[in-house]
Amino acid sequence: MGDGSFGSPAPGNAANPGWLTDIELAEARRRLPILYVEAVPVRTDGVGAVTQVGVLLRATPLGEITHTIVSGRVRYGETVRDALFRHLENDLGPMAFPQLPPQPVPFTVAEYFPMPGVSAFHDERQHAVSLAFVIPVTGTCQPRQDALEVTWMTPEEASSDALAADMEGGRATLIRLALASVGALR
Amino acid sequence: MGDGSFGSPAPGNAANPGWLTDIELAEARRRLPILYVEAVPVRTDGVGAVTQVGVLLRATPLGEITHTIVSGRVRYGETVRDALFRHLENDLGPMAFPQLPPQPVPFTVAEYFPMPGVSAFHDERQHAVSLAFVIPVTGTCQPRQDALEVTWMTPEEASSDALAADMEGGRATLIRLALASVGALR
Amino acid sequence: MGDGSFGSPAPGNAANPGWLTDIELAEARRRLPILYVEAVPVRTDGVGAVTQVGVLLRATPLGEITHTIVSGRVRYGETVRDALFRHLENDLGPMAFPQLPPQPVPFTVAEYFPMPGVSAFHDERQHAVSLAFVIPVTGTCQPRQDALEVTWMTPEEASSDALAADMEGGRATLIRLALASVGALR
Amino acid sequence: MGDGSFGSPAPGNAANPGWLTDIELAEARRRLPILYVEAVPVRTDGVGAVTQVGVLLRATPLGEITHTIVSGRVRYGETVRDALFRHLENDLGPMAFPQLPPQPVPFTVAEYFPMPGVSAFHDERQHAVSLAFVIPVTGTCQPRQDALEVTWMTPEEASSDALAADMEGGRATLIRLALASVGALR
Repeated sequence: MGDGSFGSPAPGNAANPGWLTDIELAEARRRLPILYVEAVPVRTDGVGAVTQVGVLLRATPLGEITHTIVSGRVRYGETVRDALFRHLENDLGPMAFPQLPPQPVPFTVAEYFPMPGVSAFHDERQHAVSLAFVIPVTGTCQPRQDALEVTWMTPEEASSDALAADMEGGRATLIRLALASVGALR
Repeated sequence: MGDGSFGSPAPGNAANPGWLTDIELAEARRRLPILYVEAVPVRTDGVGAVTQVGVLLRATPLGEITHTIVSGRVRYGETVRDALFRHLENDLGPMAFPQLPPQPVPFTVAEYFPMPGVSAFHDERQHAVSLAFVIPVTGTCQPRQDALEVTWMTPEEASSDALAADMEGGRATLIRLALASVGALR
Repeated sequence: MGDGSFGSPAPGNAANPGWLTDIELAEARRRLPILYVEAVPVRTDGVGAVTQVGVLLRATPLGEITHTIVSGRVRYGETVRDALFRHLENDLGPMAFPQLPPQPVPFTVAEYFPMPGVSAFHDERQHAVSLAFVIPVTGTCQPRQDALEVTWMTPEEASSDALAADMEGGRATLIRLALASVGALR
Repeated sequence: MGDGSFGSPAPGNAANPGWLTDIELAEARRRLPILYVEAVPVRTDGVGAVTQVGVLLRATPLGEITHTIVSGRVRYGETVRDALFRHLENDLGPMAFPQLPPQPVPFTVAEYFPMPGVSAFHDERQHAVSLAFVIPVTGTCQPRQDALEVTWMTPEEASSDALAADMEGGRATLIRLALASVGALR
């Protein structure tokens, strides 16, 4: 999960005691599982079948380019829906028009552990538990923050080993599970 | 399930040997479970939470008014998505703009038996197995066929005993299961 | 779907007008989508995670050996649960002790069309719509009918391209979707 | 969520820096959403349909008797499955033999806020996000800790207004959503 998922403190941050300083967050990450939301953006045809998958190009702090998906923390007092919408807007821009599903249930629960091998997912910074959703977007994506670009791929490309090599922490597996949940994995 | 779910033969009917005459359909209904799709139309807020439920007013062949939902048969050679879209358009009109979900999985599988009491669902004409979906609609509903009107209700009204008394075959239960699947049942 | 899924008429068949002769069934298959259930048998560890997948070895009418899963038709008047249990018992034997889930919802709805390419699934004999379930089994599998053997594989083996080459009609895809639904696909 | 969900520090607690002292936990609860698992225990018939629902009788710190369900926190480094199993064993005893599902996806995500009215769920101590599961149990329940007893009810009783009056924080709603997910709500 990119550092950009946390971003700079928002202007209203000081006023909300539920939001954390960087030091407090670092401390909490060594003590508690941290709740995340993740989203695989898709484009659909007229009857709802997935035709394309959106993958984010992102620069790591070391300047490397990786592929990833929409991802970020749920804040204290924030609903899962609001967190999902906030991170979609941050990563896809204000004109993406994501269609959040009426159901509160994710397609999978991805458990990221600091130690590799416990599960399919790995995050060296923390134990994170992520509710992952497939989200149709109908507008235009203009990433903000540190996401450089959104690339649209066919389901075949998005589930390929070639893409998997460019994804970290098990995100390639997460995309395959997302595609399976919509019947678009072969 | 209203007779209108089957409608008059479409113009292309004669050309497609997979579609049935009324006599053949009546015969099949005594021998095989018939596959249906059903839809509970909803309106959602900006982050996808359900705010309203659409219920159809329909006149029975005997002239009684009942409340029901979108419902109809899947034809030979037709995908479940196409059947769902066709019945939504028939019952809500061409300007409803339903958003079919990317997932192929229904919120429940409703089994209608000719004999009451086998399950929560009952259809004296047939053994029908229905894949039931919650479908957000974003446009304007103008029912065609024999549906007289679409009434929008709050989730509380839609799950009330008062409405249940006006619904047949277990449709009131189906609406409650639909509301539960989107976290809108109390 | 193997011919064995339909099997010989059961002893009580003549007494139930809802069951079909072979000729009637062949006719219905050209006119209506036929409702199926399918099951991917699995073994799980003490906390429910899938450790192994059961694949059936079956001989085709031409004497070829193929790999497949539990599959069969839902009869008139039969619940989906009863059909699922009946086919599990037929294909895995009476000592398999399958644990049917409390939920009625399948992990996917597989649509088999006679014409290849309409969907991921293909059945030249019919248009079949299948409710597919992952079913933990805790006992010993002794196939009856024409299933020769149940082979237990790791999730990796069960999702391999090598196995896929021995499966027909899109069953390899169905196993991958099953594994994804339980978080066991990488 | 009963205080008993956290219990006394386990013997190994001091050895694991990821587990929290009571003071640290109280602090974290004012700053971060806390991840929970919850379980509605059920008994099923031979083909998996729910016949009974298990409800816990629990004494509050003030000596009042309330009805509740299995509930507790996910620890740092612990999988969701392990947390679920641990709390089931704590609340139902070691002979309950719960059958955890192979799927990682809950039937709902219940969001508990300290302020009433934000959602259907309320917990004055914290912002908790709970992954809620329906869990068949096949053995004998002998509650440990502060759960006094497990009462088995029909689905009708478990979804009644009478029971709801004895449940706190929205647990009555959670049981109804659980029953709906298994098709056992009318």
